[in-house]
Amino acid sequence: MVKLVGDERLDYLLAENLRIIQSPTVFSFSLDAVLLSRFAYLPIQKGNILDLCTGNGIVPLILSTRTKGKIVGVEIQERLYDMAVRSIEYNQLEHQIEMVHGDIKEMPKTLGYGKYDVVTCNPPYFTTSQKGYQNLNEHLAIARHEILCTLEDVIRVSSQLVKQGGKIALVHRPGRLVDIVELMRKYGVEPKRIQSVYPKINKEANTILVEGIKGGRSDLKLLPPIIVYDEHNEYTPEIRKILYGDKAESSVNEICE
Amino acid sequence: MVKLVGDERLDYLLAENLRIIQSPTVFSFSLDAVLLSRFAYLPIQKGNILDLCTGNGIVPLILSTRTKGKIVGVEIQERLYDMAVRSIEYNQLEHQIEMVHGDIKEMPKTLGYGKYDVVTCNPPYFTTSQKGYQNLNEHLAIARHEILCTLEDVIRVSSQLVKQGGKIALVHRPGRLVDIVELMRKYGVEPKRIQSVYPKINKEANTILVEGIKGGRSDLKLLPPIIVYDEHNEYTPEIRKILYGDKAESSVNEICE
Repeated sequence: MVKLVGDERLDYLLAENLRIIQSPTVFSFSLDAVLLSRFAYLPIQKGNILDLCTGNGIVPLILSTRTKGKIVGVEIQERLYDMAVRSIEYNQLEHQIEMVHGDIKEMPKTLGYGKYDVVTCNPPYFTTSQKGYQNLNEHLAIARHEILCTLEDVIRVSSQLVKQGGKIALVHRPGRLVDIVELMRKYGVEPKRIQSVYPKINKEANTILVEGIKGGRSDLKLLPPIIVYDEHNEYTPEIRKILYGDKAESSVNEICE
Repeated sequence: MVKLVGDERLDYLLAENLRIIQSPTVFSFSLDAVLLSRFAYLPIQKGNILDLCTGNGIVPLILSTRTKGKIVGVEIQERLYDMAVRSIEYNQLEHQIEMVHGDIKEMPKTLGYGKYDVVTCNPPYFTTSQKGYQNLNEHLAIARHEILCTLEDVIRVSSQLVKQGGKIALVHRPGRLVDIVELMRKYGVEPKRIQSVYPKINKEANTILVEGIKGGRSDLKLLPPIIVYDEHNEYTPEIRKILYGDKAESSVNEICE
C-alpha cells in the first residue's frame, strides 16, 4: 500500500522493475534523469553515492539497481522529499537509500567533506533571467530554474563532497557546457567523459552528460552519441532498452515527460 | 604544367574540382582539414580570411570554393609553403589566395591586429611529451607536434588577428576540448559551435570542430554528429559528399590520409 497525495500517480520504472510516485503539477522525472543514472560510473559492491537535487528520487532509485553501495538523495523541497521517501519505502529500499531534506549548499557541513565516491546531479537548467518561470507553480519553478541553487553552487558543493579521485556526473543543456567544464576546473574537478544526446541523428544535441574526476588528469573522452528518436519519430532501440529494459518489445506508453 | 619535387604527387580534390600537391614524406592533408573547411562559417561575397598552420594549403584551397573573400595562408615550413604556392598557381587562384611564409606568433605584428573576419586553424595535435615524434622526420614532426607552436599560441594569436565579432574555427582531438574552450575564454573568444566527429556511430569521437566568436555571448550549440564510416566500414553518404562532391557515386580511391 502507498499513500498518494493530490494528483500523484504510482508510475512504473519498467527497466528497473521499480515504481515511483510522480505528479504532473509537482514533479515528474525526465529522460535526462534516466540517462544520468545510466551514464554515471558507480562502484558495484560498496561505496557512498550522493545524488543532489534529487527531486522525487528518480536517480537514487535507478542507481540502486546498479550498485550495492549506500545512496543518499538530497532534496530541498519538502513535498518532493516526501514523495521520494514514500517511493523508497514502497520499493523496500530503505536499507540502501536515505533521503535528506535540505539545501545542497549546507551538505558539506551536514554530511562531511570528501566522503563520497560518486556525486550525481540533475540540476535546474534555466537561469532566473530566462523566460517562462513566472508561469510555473513554485514546485516546478524551483526544480527547473536556478532559484535556490546555481550551476556554480552545484559544482562547488559536489567538489567539496566528493573524495579525491571520486567522480561527479551531471546532466545539463549544451548551452552550459563551457560553463560546466570551466567551473569543474575552477573547483579542482577534471572533465573526463562527455556524452551528447541528440533528439535525432540530424539534429543539434539538446542534452549533455558530463563526468569529472576530483584531482584527475586532463584527458577528455567524447562517448558515442545517444540518438533518442529514429526517422519515424519512434524511440531508438538504445532508448527503448534504457526505458523499458527487456520489456522493450512490448507495447508501452512513454513513461517520462 | 607544375613542378613536382621528390615524391610529390598532384592529387585531386574531387568535390572542389581542384588539384593539390602532396607528399607522403612531407605533408598530406587529412580528413580533418576538409571537415574544418566545411565547418567554418564564411562571408560569401567579400571579407578577409586567414588560415594558420596551413601546411600544403588544403584549407585555403577548399575555402576558395565557398567565398569570394580574400584568403591568406600562413605556414612556417618553407617546403610546405612552397608546395602551397605551387598548388595555388596550378589552380590559378593567385588573385584570391596569398601565402605567407612565417611563424604564426609573428603574424599580428606582420598582418595587423583585428583585421580578419574568420581565422581557421588545423594545428599540430600532439604535445611534445607525447610519444612517437622522435620517429617522424622533421616535416611531419613539426606538422603534428607542438614543437613550433602550442595550442595556447594558436588561440592567443587567432584572437589577436580576428575582428570583434569575427570567428575562429579549429579542428582538434577531443582530449583537448576542455583546454580549447578554456583558452578561448581566456583570450576573449566565446565557444559557440562544436561538432563531434565519430569514426562510427558506436565509437567515441576522435575529432572535434570548435568555433568561437571574439567577444561573443555565452550560448554554445552542439551540431549534429558527423559519422565517418558506416557498419560496413564504408564512408557514410555525408562523408562521400564532402570528399567526392557530385562524383560521390563514381568509384574513387581514398584521397586523404
